[in-house]
Formats: sequence, C-alpha cells, structure tokens
Amino acid sequence: MNTLQQYLDKLQALNFKDMYNGDFFLTWEKSDDEIEAVFTVADALRNLRERNISTKVFDSGLGISLFRDNSTRTRFSFASACNLLGLEVQDLDEGKSQVAHGETVRETANMISFMADVIGIRDDMYIGKGNSYMHEVADAVAQGQQDGILEQKPTLVNLQCDIDHPTQAMADMLHIIHEFGGVENLKGKKLAMTWAYSPSYGKPLSVPQGIIGLMTRFGMDVVLAHPQGYEVFPEVEAVAAQNAQKSGGSFQKTNSMAEAFRDADIVYPKSWAPFAAMEKRTQLYGNGDMDGIQALEKELLAQNAEHKDWACTEALISTTKGGKALYMHCLPADITGVSCKTGEVDASVFDRYRNPLYKEASFKPYIIAAMIFLAKFEHPAKLLKQLEDKGTPRVFR
Amino acid sequence: MNTLQQYLDKLQALNFKDMYNGDFFLTWEKSDDEIEAVFTVADALRNLRERNISTKVFDSGLGISLFRDNSTRTRFSFASACNLLGLEVQDLDEGKSQVAHGETVRETANMISFMADVIGIRDDMYIGKGNSYMHEVADAVAQGQQDGILEQKPTLVNLQCDIDHPTQAMADMLHIIHEFGGVENLKGKKLAMTWAYSPSYGKPLSVPQGIIGLMTRFGMDVVLAHPQGYEVFPEVEAVAAQNAQKSGGSFQKTNSMAEAFRDADIVYPKSWAPFAAMEKRTQLYGNGDMDGIQALEKELLAQNAEHKDWACTEALISTTKGGKALYMHCLPADITGVSCKTGEVDASVFDRYRNPLYKEASFKPYIIAAMIFLAKFEHPAKLLKQLEDKGTPRVFR
Amino acid sequence: MNTLQQYLDKLQALNFKDMYNGDFFLTWEKSDDEIEAVFTVADALRNLRERNISTKVFDSGLGISLFRDNSTRTRFSFASACNLLGLEVQDLDEGKSQVAHGETVRETANMISFMADVIGIRDDMYIGKGNSYMHEVADAVAQGQQDGILEQKPTLVNLQCDIDHPTQAMADMLHIIHEFGGVENLKGKKLAMTWAYSPSYGKPLSVPQGIIGLMTRFGMDVVLAHPQGYEVFPEVEAVAAQNAQKSGGSFQKTNSMAEAFRDADIVYPKSWAPFAAMEKRTQLYGNGDMDGIQALEKELLAQNAEHKDWACTEALISTTKGGKALYMHCLPADITGVSCKTGEVDASVFDRYRNPLYKEASFKPYIIAAMIFLAKFEHPAKLLKQLEDKGTPRVFR
Repeated sequence: MNTLQQYLDKLQALNFKDMYNGDFFLTWEKSDDEIEAVFTVADALRNLRERNISTKVFDSGLGISLFRDNSTRTRFSFASACNLLGLEVQDLDEGKSQVAHGETVRETANMISFMADVIGIRDDMYIGKGNSYMHEVADAVAQGQQDGILEQKPTLVNLQCDIDHPTQAMADMLHIIHEFGGVENLKGKKLAMTWAYSPSYGKPLSVPQGIIGLMTRFGMDVVLAHPQGYEVFPEVEAVAAQNAQKSGGSFQKTNSMAEAFRDADIVYPKSWAPFAAMEKRTQLYGNGDMDGIQALEKELLAQNAEHKDWACTEALISTTKGGKALYMHCLPADITGVSCKTGEVDASVFDRYRNPLYKEASFKPYIIAAMIFLAKFEHPAKLLKQLEDKGTPRVFR
Repeated sequence: MNTLQQYLDKLQALNFKDMYNGDFFLTWEKSDDEIEAVFTVADALRNLRERNISTKVFDSGLGISLFRDNSTRTRFSFASACNLLGLEVQDLDEGKSQVAHGETVRETANMISFMADVIGIRDDMYIGKGNSYMHEVADAVAQGQQDGILEQKPTLVNLQCDIDHPTQAMADMLHIIHEFGGVENLKGKKLAMTWAYSPSYGKPLSVPQGIIGLMTRFGMDVVLAHPQGYEVFPEVEAVAAQNAQKSGGSFQKTNSMAEAFRDADIVYPKSWAPFAAMEKRTQLYGNGDMDGIQALEKELLAQNAEHKDWACTEALISTTKGGKALYMHCLPADITGVSCKTGEVDASVFDRYRNPLYKEASFKPYIIAAMIFLAKFEHPAKLLKQLEDKGTPRVFR
Repeated sequence: MNTLQQYLDKLQALNFKDMYNGDFFLTWEKSDDEIEAVFTVADALRNLRERNISTKVFDSGLGISLFRDNSTRTRFSFASACNLLGLEVQDLDEGKSQVAHGETVRETANMISFMADVIGIRDDMYIGKGNSYMHEVADAVAQGQQDGILEQKPTLVNLQCDIDHPTQAMADMLHIIHEFGGVENLKGKKLAMTWAYSPSYGKPLSVPQGIIGLMTRFGMDVVLAHPQGYEVFPEVEAVAAQNAQKSGGSFQKTNSMAEAFRDADIVYPKSWAPFAAMEKRTQLYGNGDMDGIQALEKELLAQNAEHKDWACTEALISTTKGGKALYMHCLPADITGVSCKTGEVDASVFDRYRNPLYKEASFKPYIIAAMIFLAKFEHPAKLLKQLEDKGTPRVFR
C-alpha cells in the first residue's frame, strides 16, 4: 500500500480543475488526468479508511439515489460512498414505467435538491433515454443554482446509463491497476472483452461499452469479441478506436471468442443484448406494445441459444497468457451448473477467481466517492491531508 | 440578507414559550408571536446554512415520517429538515387503506418512538380523520413520556391533514414576506386564493384552507374564489373571517375568478375538490363501496369540466396589480398544453414565474426544521448563537 | 438507576472476550457471563443516553437490515440501535419468496458489506432455514474479511430466526430483572410461558422457544404450557431442561393453562403454531403447493378454535402470585374485544399492564446495540467510560 503522501504527490501533478462543480456522465468525456485523479482520490480515501481515519467531509447533506431498476450492488455502493463522506441517502422511487420529461424533470430535480450534494442515477433500460435524462437533471439543478434557488449544485453521478457504466468500468480498471502493480505496467497487455452465453435476455450494453471506452486508454491491446448480430453502439466503438490510437494500444473486433482469449492477460466474458434489439425494445415499450415485447424476447432467447459455445471454460482459460489471465466480471455471473444449467463461465473458473472478483467490486464505493469528492472540492489533495492531520477515528475505540 | 443577529433580536421580542415540548397541528392554534418565531428561526437556520455553518443540534436521533400518500416533495422536505438538524429519517409505511385506531395507534406510536425526536405525518385523504389521527399519535407519545416509557417526547409535525397544510402555508407566507420585503409591507395587499380547473379529481382542500387560515393574519385583503359547489370547510372560513377582523385586513368570498384577480397583488389559482364530495368519498371508503367511489369520481370530473374557464390565463394576469401579481402554487401545477390539455395555468404564465415558484418551495425544509427546533429547544435564540460561535462547517473544505 | 460506574464494575468481573468479533445467533450458545455482559452494556448505554451523553462510536458506517417479513417493531428497534451507535441503516429487500443459497448468499453478503459494521437479519418463516441462512451470511463475510476483501467484518445479529428470537428474549429478561430489582431476586420465581388462543394462524415459535431457552438460566421455575399438538422444537426443550438443572431452577411442561398460571410470578401467554405444522408448511412452500398451504391454514385455524379457552383472563390472573403476576407479551397482542372478538388476553388485563408492556419493548434497541457493541469493541468498559468522560451531548442545547 502506498502512503497517503504518494497519492497527494500524484494529484499535484494532475490537471483536474474542470471537475470542480462538474458531473460525471461518460469516461471518454474526461481527460486522462481527470480519470487518473479519480483513481488516485479513490485510493487515497481507501487508504484513510483502512487506517480508521474518518473521511466525513459533510456534516450534513443528502445523497439522492434514483434507480429505474432494482439494483442491490450499485445501490449499496452508492450508499456506502455517500456514508463514507457524511451524506445521508434518500431514495427517489419514480417507478420503472414513468419516464418523465421536460417540465416535470426540471421541477422534480429542483424540489429534491434543496439540501442535496449529490444525485446518483441509474437509468439503463431504454436506448437513447438514460444518458439524456441525466443531462436534463444536471442542467435543471445547474440552472437552479444559477437562479438562486439551490444553495449548492448537487453533482450528478452516472450510476449506469444506456451508453456507459462509468463507476463499473472505473472500478474494474482500478482493480486491473492494482493487480498489475500500476498503470505503467499495462502497455501491451491484451484485454478480451467478449460476449458470453446466458439463459437470460436483455442484459445492458453499458458494461461492454464502458469497458472498451475506458480500457483502450492505457496502451493495452483491447479485443471486443461477440457473435455476429451482437454489435454494440458504433459511436462507442469509434471512441475505443480513437483511444487506442492515442494511447499507443490497439482496438480490434472479432467474432471468435477463441481468438480473443488467445494469450490474453485479462478476460471479461459477459452476456449482453444486441444493440439493434434494444433499440427495437425501446420503441415497443414506447408504444406500449406488450405482445411485441414478448415476441422480441422469445426471438432473442432463441438467438442467444445458438451461441451456447460462447462460455469461459477451463479449456479456453488455458489458452490465455500462461493459462492464467485475470478473469473479470461485473457480477452476478451466470455460472454453469450453479446459477443456471449453461452460462457464462465454468464453476471451477469462477471458484478460482472469486476473491479477485470480490476485490474488483470493492473498488466501486471508492470510485463513486472519488467522483463526488472531485466535483465538490476545489483542493482535494489539501483536504485529504487535512483529514489525515485531523485524524478523527472512523470507529472510536 | 439579514444578519443572524437581526433574527436573534427579533426572537427576543417574541413570546413562544408554549411551543417548547409542543406540537404543530394547525396554524390558527398558534399565536402571532409563535407564527413569527417559526419564520424567524427558519430564516436564521437558512442564514447559517448559507454561510456553511452546521446546524446539527442532534448528534443522533430519529425523525419518523409517516405518509398515507406518496409524496416526493413533502417527503424530501421533511428528510432535508431532519438531516439539517442531525436526525436520521425512518419511514413508517402503514399503507393507504390501513387506518389504525385506538390501541394500535397508541402502541405503534410508542414502539417507533424509543429514539424518535420528531414524527412527521401526512394524512390528508379522509375528511375528519387525518387531524384526529395526528392527535391520537401525539397524545400517545406524550403519555408514553409521562409514564417513563419514552426518554423524550417526539414532537409531531403536521405535514398535511384534512384541515390544514401548515408547512405549505407557512412556506408560502415566508416567500411572500421575502418577496414584499417584510411583513410590515403586506397591509392592504390583495391576495386571491382561487379555484382553478384541473383534469384530475379529488385534490385536497388543505391547501386553500391553509392559505385562507394563515394569510388573513397579516392585514391583507384575502379573497377566496371558487365556482358554486366548491366550498371549503365552513369552520376554516370562520377562522379566516376572525383573523381578518383582528389583523385589520379583510376576508371575502366570490364566485368570480375575474373579480378575485382584479388588482390582486398575489394570486394562488389551484384546483381542489368540493368539501361535500370529500365527505361523501370518506363515507364510501369507510363502507368499502368501490362502485360508489367510481360513480362519485365520474360525477366530480363532469362537475369540474363545467368550469374549464377557471384558469390563470395571461388575460387574467393582466388584470392584476400592474399586470404583475405574484403568482403562487404549491406545485406541481396542471399547466395548459404542458402537463395536460387544459389546466390551471397558461404555460407562458408558469414559465415567467418558475423561479419564484421554486423559491417558494425552497422555504419548506426550513419551516419544518424551525417547527422542530422550537418544539425541542427552550432557548432557540441562544442555541442559534452558539451554533454560529461554534462555527462547525457543514461542508469541511 | 445505577451509576455508570456500577455497570463498568460489573463488566470487569465478567469474561466475554469471545464475543469480540463474534456474532449473535442463539442465547444458549453464549455463556452466562456473556449474557450478563449484554444486559450490562444495554443498561450502560441507556444510562448514558438518559443523561444526554452521545454513544456514537461510529463516525460513519452502515447497518444492514435484511427482513424477509414486514416488521415495524423489530425494524425500528434495529434502526434505533444503529443510530444510537452512529451507523446508518440500509435495508436490503430480498422479497419473501426468494430464499437464496450458496454462491448467491456468499456473493450478496460480501457485496453489501464493503462498509457494513453490522447485519441484522429476520428470517423466521421456514423451519430449518432462517438460522442456517444467517450462518451462511456470517461465514461469507468472515471469509471475506480473511481474504482481504472486507476491511471489517460486520457482526451478525439474529433479529428472529426459526429457532430463537434472542433480541426479544433478552429484552424481556432485562425487563424482568428491572421489575424484580436484580437477577439475584429471581431464584425460585415461577414463570409461565403459555400458549394462548388467537384467531390468526402461523405465529412463529421463536418467541416461546427463546423464552424457555433463556429464562431457565436464572434459577426460576419455568413452566411451558400448551394444548396437545402445539409442541415446540424438542431440541429447545432439551436446552431448557439442561439450563434449569444447571441454574438450580426447574423446567416443566403441562397441557393446563390453569396449572401454569397458579402462583406464577410472571406469565407470558401468547399464540404460536405447532412445530409439526410449521415443518409441513415449509415443505409445501418448498414445493410451491399453494392449495396445500390453504388447506393447512384452514386445518390449523380449526385446530386453534378448539382452544378458545386458552386466554389470559382476569379469573386466571387472579390465581397467580398475589393475583398480580407480571404479565408479559412481545406485542402486538390479540386483545379480546379490542383487536379481535376472542383473543389472547382480556382487555382489562392488558390495560392494567400497558405501561410494563411498553417498557418491556423499550429494552430491545439497547439489547441490539449492546450485542453490536460487544462484537465490535474489545474493551467495552473502557470505551463506555471514555464516552462518559468525553460527554458529547446527544442533543446540543
């Protein structure tokens, strides 16, 4: 473990001044320095907590969580992050169906924000909606503060939208950095983001998109693999390609899982729904066409079933670098013979990687807290140092 | 903005000693000094928060919220108020249908209050029930403390009952005071509380009743306007008439929206259900007569539809004092062409007043916090001064 | 009321070092010293709170509540205990039907625990499931901490399982201790834990089992009374018998309520479902046999109805020691003529004992807090003293 001072030194060298009073929507809207700042603050906050030093920078204040979907993991990660900083979580339940617009969004955003320091939104169900909804909310509260209605502008944290899942991808990346002993060791490493078979349908695209949109920034050779027909957003592929070029890595696509796994250092096999199907589903929901949705679901499950061979088996893992690529997943995984008959991964593979998988997940609360921290405080390094100096114990013993 | 000292000086001149250890049910049960004390403490708390000074007077303790209805706004206002003072909110969900009585109320009230410092209740659905339920709860916990069961008596805050909506009316009034530069400038101002058409049915009477029951205390000329058949509780009209006489203002009724708006300084156009219909609905619910309820709803919607001309149009606004009366609403409003085809207010009127409307709403958390503060602390002025002197930052920067 | 120092002195004489970093499942898994330590810390925490001294030992951290059942009382007791110590409650709603196993439990337990200091579980619906589920969770997080995933191991508190209801039984016992002026006065006292008729069906066995499993440890003469066919777990009866032998008291069974009440010092009349029926219900639920469940319910209600004479009447109370045994109940009770036509207790009896009943309940938050305190802190006496010395007011006045 580094000392806190090492993190502070790193922060001093980075330019992240535009994050102050900002929001976090997509990783590729942030500069390399800003991404690095999130990792560094996350590590610093964890360092303090592990030494039983309180990082409660808010004496009072609310963190609003707005989920269109049930979500145990992200919900608890957000709650943990808020609690770590001293904010009390209040859930806003809008229901799944009720996608508000315009006046209603503007009004509700302000009405819940009189004492809110952060709003975390998960809205990943409908293509073309989630991210734009988040922008509506962020614009509304920015305007609210400008107009003298809100005493503070709550920062918006994207807890998963239709395009990106930044807190997941960032937590995953911080895990990789720790596993490989630093970002400087990642150049030339091969990461395979591959589709895998699952008996369920309609898993969000935001995870593979988040992964290729972020992991291509570190000089790695990133491969996106999926059966034909499981394409992700073309815009995000373009982002990945640009990133790779800039970072000195590469971004390639293939329809062969075997090719993607061969000599890979990191593998991320996971099911998702085809982009085109998700677009169609969004339209069907928009029209309230429930018969159409059932028909689509049936069709997609049939399509999935043609690709049961897309699984992270022991055989496939043995073809990776030294037979021991780092296996990653956002969890929960569909484990063959455990959570389903045939799934994304062999039980023995999952078993062997359980600890790293749990560790991977453990970074998320800190990533969220770091995003809040950088948006709310102009001088985070100075503040972290003050917290260490003050040394209020998290648990008074 | 005044200095904190100005608020403290004002408090010194007021007699509000009976509020200590008390509850807040109806504004007209409070003296003028007590009402003034709530406004003053609300302003003082806001003053401290805006200067980043913590007002967390509770190190631990619970604020219980009990809503029979869904309510985003009031729920968040209550949560904000509790958080501002250091109380953690716990929601008690009793469900809409389950109107408890007697033994159950007494027992539940005590069981949830072992560590509760405040209970906020919204129960506005049934005529003759909400307010009396609140009294049952308040009596139970007062008895509980007397009997040595509760270490503290939670104060009860009426977050909307069948008779009054004191936190709304008080927030509205504090907004007026700020807009007009002080309560001393209100004498002779004309306020029009008028019914307006909405395509929905059964909106509570507590808002217009709360408004006429409170706004008549400040020397204003208050006019209540509605179509025939939309009468409010006669008891509250009597309160308004008495208030007006005492304050040197007036209280008048009319069946003409135009008359109410003419030369008005403040207009509050809003839909509500007829008192008689609400009484009938309460009986039908009591008898579980769902067919009767459907029939009543149909009848009321038809009755409403006869009064679509009751709308806050640009034409009507132009007849107010200088064409620019302060437009008020408790939100959400039914905006013509935005949230419905024909509603309470023209979109262009609403647009022009959006900022004042949001500001109006922003007072509610502070009003609730002030009610709690005055019930829990014997010497609020001294305590506010201590908070300023201590100067614990709300956000540690 | 004792002074804090008296409690600290008592703690010094007790051996409870194994509670540190432990969990609380069943009272009979704890030594006499450990049980005594819980009572003593509960009293000490109450002593501090009553003197307005903050016992907030956690500056941040989460308390996770996981309920398979709705539960106002236990939920609020847990929330109160967490709040008293500085932990913010987050509810995990898994739904009633979804009884997770193996991989899912292990994973979820870790995912919610990154910043959790306590997990409280209520899972009492299915015989043979609740307690073992709690162990699965506790094992998972213990492993998680060992593997370096969790920075702290959350302590598990059993908020009611299929076998025991330790926080209820302990709160009941602490109430008895206070009513009788000390544990030293209990030797030879007669306690009657008896079945009583209720018009509802399927009330958990964990209360009578918890009572006979704990109350037999203090030298009392404990009688378990119920109609034939309402047997409790034989394993718990064996525990009770052993306890009685060791403590110098007695444990007897009878099928006569009158016999149990005769000369009793304490009576605890309460409905429960037969063990065998609960086992059958568990199987039916497991098979999704809803018709079977309805048939079973009907059968059980008919069986109950044969024993309407099992009620805590005035006549029966008059046969207790001096006609004034301490009447106890976990609440809510089925009160004849109040909450039901024929129930567990006469209204006049309940009325007379309302205050003691509420006091009985008031110990539960402190019992839960004490269980957490003893699991999280190695030197509780020292810490309690420090809290007193620091003297941070709970309410800043």
